[in-house]
Amino acid sequence: MKKLKRSARLVEMTQYLLFRPHTLIPLTTFAERYNSAKSSISEDLAIIKEVFEEEGLGQLHTLAGAAGGVKFIPKIPKALSLEIINKYCKQLEQPERILPGGYMYMSDILGQPQFLNEVGKMFASAFAGRDLDVVMTVETKGIPLAYATATYLNLPVVIVRRDNRVTEGSAVSINYVSGSNKRIQTMSLARRALKEESKVLIIDDFMRAGGTIRGMMDLLSEFRATVKGVGVLVESGEVDEHLVEEYTSLAKVSGVESRNRQLLVTPGNYFEQDEEKR
Amino acid sequence: MKKLKRSARLVEMTQYLLFRPHTLIPLTTFAERYNSAKSSISEDLAIIKEVFEEEGLGQLHTLAGAAGGVKFIPKIPKALSLEIINKYCKQLEQPERILPGGYMYMSDILGQPQFLNEVGKMFASAFAGRDLDVVMTVETKGIPLAYATATYLNLPVVIVRRDNRVTEGSAVSINYVSGSNKRIQTMSLARRALKEESKVLIIDDFMRAGGTIRGMMDLLSEFRATVKGVGVLVESGEVDEHLVEEYTSLAKVSGVESRNRQLLVTPGNYFEQDEEKR
Repeated sequence: MKKLKRSARLVEMTQYLLFRPHTLIPLTTFAERYNSAKSSISEDLAIIKEVFEEEGLGQLHTLAGAAGGVKFIPKIPKALSLEIINKYCKQLEQPERILPGGYMYMSDILGQPQFLNEVGKMFASAFAGRDLDVVMTVETKGIPLAYATATYLNLPVVIVRRDNRVTEGSAVSINYVSGSNKRIQTMSLARRALKEESKVLIIDDFMRAGGTIRGMMDLLSEFRATVKGVGVLVESGEVDEHLVEEYTSLAKVSGVESRNRQLLVTPGNYFEQDEEKR
Repeated sequence: MKKLKRSARLVEMTQYLLFRPHTLIPLTTFAERYNSAKSSISEDLAIIKEVFEEEGLGQLHTLAGAAGGVKFIPKIPKALSLEIINKYCKQLEQPERILPGGYMYMSDILGQPQFLNEVGKMFASAFAGRDLDVVMTVETKGIPLAYATATYLNLPVVIVRRDNRVTEGSAVSINYVSGSNKRIQTMSLARRALKEESKVLIIDDFMRAGGTIRGMMDLLSEFRATVKGVGVLVESGEVDEHLVEEYTSLAKVSGVESRNRQLLVTPGNYFEQDEEKR
């Protein structure tokens, strides 16, 4: 194949790795791709590794041996994440976001792909070490968050529906009690959407008592799947008892006062947890 | 700031550009960031430009002058797009996808972030030249496609809801007739979700006669917005009359026979249109 100079090779390999997170790439792939010696490729990777780590993009894991190669693990440092989340907390505190009933408008922020990418990187950092098969969410607002996370973890996404659509085929449905309005609701997942015994990461945009996430867990037990992690963008801090024990939140909203249009948004429990092991 | 060698700078600049599509970056930004002369930065950009174009990642537009800089325009060549779409058409032709009523199961394919990224690049290539403010879709399956497209175009996403959620605030609702089941349905968009007179790109996963997209257009007229383009992943080839005149499709399904579980999926009208001007 084409023979590239180091400079061009570095550009090429950088984009190749960035678009293939959590994928083991044998050194021979690069060596053949660029018609270069493995030793040159190793030197290139050392340069890329250093920049990636310095820039907070993630780690390059090098595996030696016959089955060896290099794997890009996107990871955003907690300090940088906290900076981003703090900015976002300020935005969420704008009084005009408070809707009747104490709800908070955040569709505009969830509409920013750049912000979602950052959040996706944070969840991917938080759950990088878990052995996962799939990322799951429930429609609607969790969807872009789930995809952003799945992109960085290199996993497929499964979407739980609140209705039962004809375009999904046979499905499993369960009833659950939504924490926010205490109504009984239905959610369903197509039979063919999830393999039995899958290991699942649940992602959602907002969690009050956790009724919806509890519902997803019940639904997953119908597929004999295991929940390996739960990530929510914003949790409500005004809950006495959670229906979900273990979860990771990036932000926490409390003190919502519809009358004065006041609320307090602070970084979530992700930033209280132990510093990630490196 | 840090002083980087050319090799490290190339890695850095590559990732910097890839994560900031359709954004004008002044050369001084790079010069200051790396503590380097503008002439060195220009040489770096020339190397990156060549690799990006050769790899089908996109173009680097360089603007001279005081307000100048560099802008990364993601573009995937049509030949490469066609290769990807052809593979996907084969997958869609699997007989087990045909559901009762002649519907087609494609949630598994829409659950693959890698595939969505490719589709996002294709739509971003198709609509790169239009003057756009926002990408719009209707829940549910169009959402990941809209975000993938918006990421490459550096635009926000607006999601039309099929119900009227309390967490969205005051909204504009319209009724429309869905082509697939001839039922009257409702869709709504929060007042604050879209600025008046926005220029909109509509993205959706599937189009039969175009009733849903027609509905989105009617909804947009309530916001005095202009539709600048319509992109659908799959269109049905078995429609006598379309409610939407101009649209770009990436694939076309025809000859669906529920009984024999047969269907034909071919590349869409995007591949019949004039070769993109470069």
